Amino acid sequence: MLLDAARETAAQAVGCRPDELVFTPSGADALHTGIAGALAGRRRVGRRLVVSAVEHSAVLHAAAAHREAGGAVTEVPVDRTGRVTAAAYETALSDDTALACLQSANHEVGTVQPVADVAGVCAGVGVPLLVDAAQSLAWGPVEGGWSLLAGSAHKWGGPPGVGLLAVRKGVRFAAPPPVGEREQGRSPGFENIPAIVAAAASLRAVRTEADAAAARLRSLVDRVRERVPELVPDVEVVGDPVRRLPHVVTFSCLYVDGEALLHALDRAGFSVSSGSSCTSSTLTPSHVLRAMGVLSEGNIRLSLPPTPDESVEADVERFLTVLPEAVREVREQLNAPTASPREARSVPDSSGLTVDALGTLCPLPVIELAKVIDDVPVGGVITVLADDEAARVDIPAWCEMRGQEFLGADGTEFRIRRVT
Amino acid sequence: MLLDAARETAAQAVGCRPDELVFTPSGADALHTGIAGALAGRRRVGRRLVVSAVEHSAVLHAAAAHREAGGAVTEVPVDRTGRVTAAAYETALSDDTALACLQSANHEVGTVQPVADVAGVCAGVGVPLLVDAAQSLAWGPVEGGWSLLAGSAHKWGGPPGVGLLAVRKGVRFAAPPPVGEREQGRSPGFENIPAIVAAAASLRAVRTEADAAAARLRSLVDRVRERVPELVPDVEVVGDPVRRLPHVVTFSCLYVDGEALLHALDRAGFSVSSGSSCTSSTLTPSHVLRAMGVLSEGNIRLSLPPTPDESVEADVERFLTVLPEAVREVREQLNAPTASPREARSVPDSSGLTVDALGTLCPLPVIELAKVIDDVPVGGVITVLADDEAARVDIPAWCEMRGQEFLGADGTEFRIRRVT
Repeated sequence: MLLDAARETAAQAVGCRPDELVFTPSGADALHTGIAGALAGRRRVGRRLVVSAVEHSAVLHAAAAHREAGGAVTEVPVDRTGRVTAAAYETALSDDTALACLQSANHEVGTVQPVADVAGVCAGVGVPLLVDAAQSLAWGPVEGGWSLLAGSAHKWGGPPGVGLLAVRKGVRFAAPPPVGEREQGRSPGFENIPAIVAAAASLRAVRTEADAAAARLRSLVDRVRERVPELVPDVEVVGDPVRRLPHVVTFSCLYVDGEALLHALDRAGFSVSSGSSCTSSTLTPSHVLRAMGVLSEGNIRLSLPPTPDESVEADVERFLTVLPEAVREVREQLNAPTASPREARSVPDSSGLTVDALGTLCPLPVIELAKVIDDVPVGGVITVLADDEAARVDIPAWCEMRGQEFLGADGTEFRIRRVT
Repeated sequence: MLLDAARETAAQAVGCRPDELVFTPSGADALHTGIAGALAGRRRVGRRLVVSAVEHSAVLHAAAAHREAGGAVTEVPVDRTGRVTAAAYETALSDDTALACLQSANHEVGTVQPVADVAGVCAGVGVPLLVDAAQSLAWGPVEGGWSLLAGSAHKWGGPPGVGLLAVRKGVRFAAPPPVGEREQGRSPGFENIPAIVAAAASLRAVRTEADAAAARLRSLVDRVRERVPELVPDVEVVGDPVRRLPHVVTFSCLYVDGEALLHALDRAGFSVSSGSSCTSSTLTPSHVLRAMGVLSEGNIRLSLPPTPDESVEADVERFLTVLPEAVREVREQLNAPTASPREARSVPDSSGLTVDALGTLCPLPVIELAKVIDDVPVGGVITVLADDEAARVDIPAWCEMRGQEFLGADGTEFRIRRVT
């Protein structure tokens, strides 16, 4: 009975029927089950899966598994704000497409996706759309004619250990084996009833306060987006400025080691996240920032809590006070170029100049490039040798920020033309 | 750090290295991941999976999924106590066997399996053994040279939402896709850290008290096993009398509708389980009782709590007082034969007698048979027509209990020769 009540509460918040919703042990599990089940249910149609380039890693892992099992995957690109277009999905959908996936909003940069438009395009050709709603369920139901939807309780402030998967009636679905007796065979194992009850209750609770919290956080996020570039030189604020989650704000700082900045902010009492390569174990920058084509070095993500507490505003103000000095220190340690010197220095050879940054890690290749740009005349070409993965993202991003021309990369050789 | 400490505690209780153990969202998940990963890791050797006939449904579901995916499954039979033999595993292991599975103890009848012996047989031919230790981890580590081991926290008194999977170093293992970043890629999704910490702490706590609790419960279980057949006529106590879990006791009552008995006991304040077909949604009797060849009708399972509380003993005594009357009432409602009338009545035809019990459910076919057995002379044959699944288990089991000869079944036609 507790489980039934929790299911009804969650279904109401999601906007589906209770018998369309099952609980899973995590959001990742809901995504994996939803994707595998929808692909299996439409296997006769074809084996193509369409996903955006900025989906959560759980979706991309499922896509990789599908590819390894012989399926096909099409990635839909995003613009510099991290947003897809319905037209891009329309192009990607083919006769053999079994399933399309799209997040309701991006987890790293907060950009809200045009889910209703994409759902319309999918419905037009009879392809089910699975929405990863993990980021947005706290704020409201997902609009539009989606077919499947996944969520994660700890993302809406509920307990860990609970995900949810909604599968609309009429959607072809074959639960991935092994199939258990519980949750319509869509989630094996003993249900975590205390956590499920807490998850449903917390979803209802956060929804009650969602509009007020969103308005409050939006003004704080806007303040961060406006003030950070004023306070810190050479910063790129990323993500759509308007169509965005209320509580997430992300920016990247040129010539900054994200790991070092994270530690500096941690010492000041701020626990923030980063999509920089140097902060992860994989040494590759965030796939989201890469797909957007924006700077990945010195990347910082603030997630503001939805509590109606005045200390949040005070914390944001204190963050804005602490940040400029923290960035300055990290840059100083790296001997980064200071903002805009821009007078031409010695010109060794007008035909070009090569900088060897092989073996150095983000943000050093970009720093080396910035240091020598004024050593070549306008029109001159610099070649940077760099084998750090982040250079593929950050050298073009630096060119974009500085108004220089990125000529392209060939293996570990990056070519840049000085324009200004 | 909390996670590391929990892993160390759990590994110590399991008897493995911390880096051999991952946490999963449930025991079923640990079994599914363990079986799929071990099968994939040894796919080049072959695709045969060997399981006992009395494994938990999570293992049998994984076996069914493996079979559906083109793999082969061999089921090892059990004796009337529910126990396998190492020799039967030795026979079942073939050149193409990728993995063998065996529970440490049975969840329905409490029989402890000869895991160390079976592990020895498996090691002899280089086949990894996965042990489902869900039932026994509260009582102690699993002995013998197992290769993989799965457990479930809520079975040892911990929170729901936590399972564990140990994979010994050197065991070939390919985590089933999609593979996440956490828990060595063996369990995707955000770790449920509060529940994991509670699970590890509770495992350590129950182990501290395990020997004392086991001794206490063993004497209560022995009392139930001894007294129930004295107090209630026509009862079969099932499971190994000695090599058994300390806290579980199971028996079946002839001519009893398990569902009705469950309700009668529930009204008296006892929450017990049953493997009778009439108590499940599937209308098939427990696969465990079926594999053992014992009576499934009127099946009752008591699970005693490990708390050092004198009320447990009082509850057991009260159960023994309530049970005989509850069984008598249920039998009376079904108009069941009273114990042993045994004088020959009218003999319609010495060549045989047919009882039509088609369309009736357990325990009615057996009741019909019992009512007419005295109507044929010794040596005469009775044919029972029955289409209830439970009849396949319970008619032979009745013959065994009553010393009559079961001649066999052909579709819905069961033939019995009167011997006494």
